[in-house]
Amino acid sequence: MPVHAGLLRLRSRADGEILDITAGVAAVVGQAQAPVAVATAFVVGSTAALTTMEFEPGGVRDLQEALERLLPRDGDYAHNRLNHDTNSHAHMRAALVGPSVSVPVVDGRLTLGTWQQVVLLDFDDRPRERSVHVHVAS
Amino acid sequence: MPVHAGLLRLRSRADGEILDITAGVAAVVGQAQAPVAVATAFVVGSTAALTTMEFEPGGVRDLQEALERLLPRDGDYAHNRLNHDTNSHAHMRAALVGPSVSVPVVDGRLTLGTWQQVVLLDFDDRPRERSVHVHVAS
Amino acid sequence: MPVHAGLLRLRSRADGEILDITAGVAAVVGQAQAPVAVATAFVVGSTAALTTMEFEPGGVRDLQEALERLLPRDGDYAHNRLNHDTNSHAHMRAALVGPSVSVPVVDGRLTLGTWQQVVLLDFDDRPRERSVHVHVAS
Repeated sequence: MPVHAGLLRLRSRADGEILDITAGVAAVVGQAQAPVAVATAFVVGSTAALTTMEFEPGGVRDLQEALERLLPRDGDYAHNRLNHDTNSHAHMRAALVGPSVSVPVVDGRLTLGTWQQVVLLDFDDRPRERSVHVHVAS
Repeated sequence: MPVHAGLLRLRSRADGEILDITAGVAAVVGQAQAPVAVATAFVVGSTAALTTMEFEPGGVRDLQEALERLLPRDGDYAHNRLNHDTNSHAHMRAALVGPSVSVPVVDGRLTLGTWQQVVLLDFDDRPRERSVHVHVAS
Repeated sequence: MPVHAGLLRLRSRADGEILDITAGVAAVVGQAQAPVAVATAFVVGSTAALTTMEFEPGGVRDLQEALERLLPRDGDYAHNRLNHDTNSHAHMRAALVGPSVSVPVVDGRLTLGTWQQVVLLDFDDRPRERSVHVHVAS
């Protein structure tokens, strides 16, 4: 099959939690058994996002604090007012970072750097179950 | 054909307008008739961007206001000075959000969440005709 | 081969330098000889990012200054404290902009706009050699 499809299910505490999902993405790539391919990961939902980063406690905290400074949880937000909701900050952060990331595969492996992981950022303000689709095109 | 190509043409009022283009992207995916695929949407031009979000009036306004706060229209910008132009803020916002988004297809359908739409953000300061390429690889 | 793989090697001065890599990406697309395809570019490492922009001196400077304002080099960063490092700002900027960009190919050519280039943003604070994988799926 030219596109191999995998699905990761994760549980997050949300509130800006950042999860390293590299092993899950790599497992789907392994199943695809394609030497040369493109792996695309996509998170379902509008309050979470995907990117890559060095997944270590300091960088995780810095990114969380920077996003809180740039797009604070508390504010006079129309989304919250109109929908009696509390997570407008999560929607804005997710739209800015984006839901998808694509990583080329060479020799059957993701071409990530040594200190570069695929991460899910869950910006919602309550624990969530998250679905990440991983499609490997070859 | 392993990659099915579609092209959406849109007219925007710009000025930060956000357009829901999900139906157009889904139509191209439908034409591809591929059960498992990856749909990649890409906006031509350097003053517009694509992402996903819950497309509702409150969230749209919040995102527009946040981007105006973070990357204001008015400023002492070199792009405007050197090119006798007025849209440096649009270029910066577009570069930050990015021109492309990739959405996996399962059972012939986009794997978007219920409250997750593919949107075009047009940051330019005059009405524009926009082209969005949608390629479905399967 | 359904996925044609290319690799660009670049030397950057870093410190926020922005490099136009369009010619390199286009060269890989040319080698692929695929009329309809999707080109995905990905930068290895967690202190650089890819996007598209109008590559001209004014816009480059504006974007560099905006990122310095939003995510300043100097700050009380946990990544720097815990790892005796100096580039937390580079990690945050790279995570926000993202490592990958996908550009559809039509008639064997990238569908970029006339004033839209694929760029590498190197946020690290020392000169680096960078690898950008370019995979063309057709």
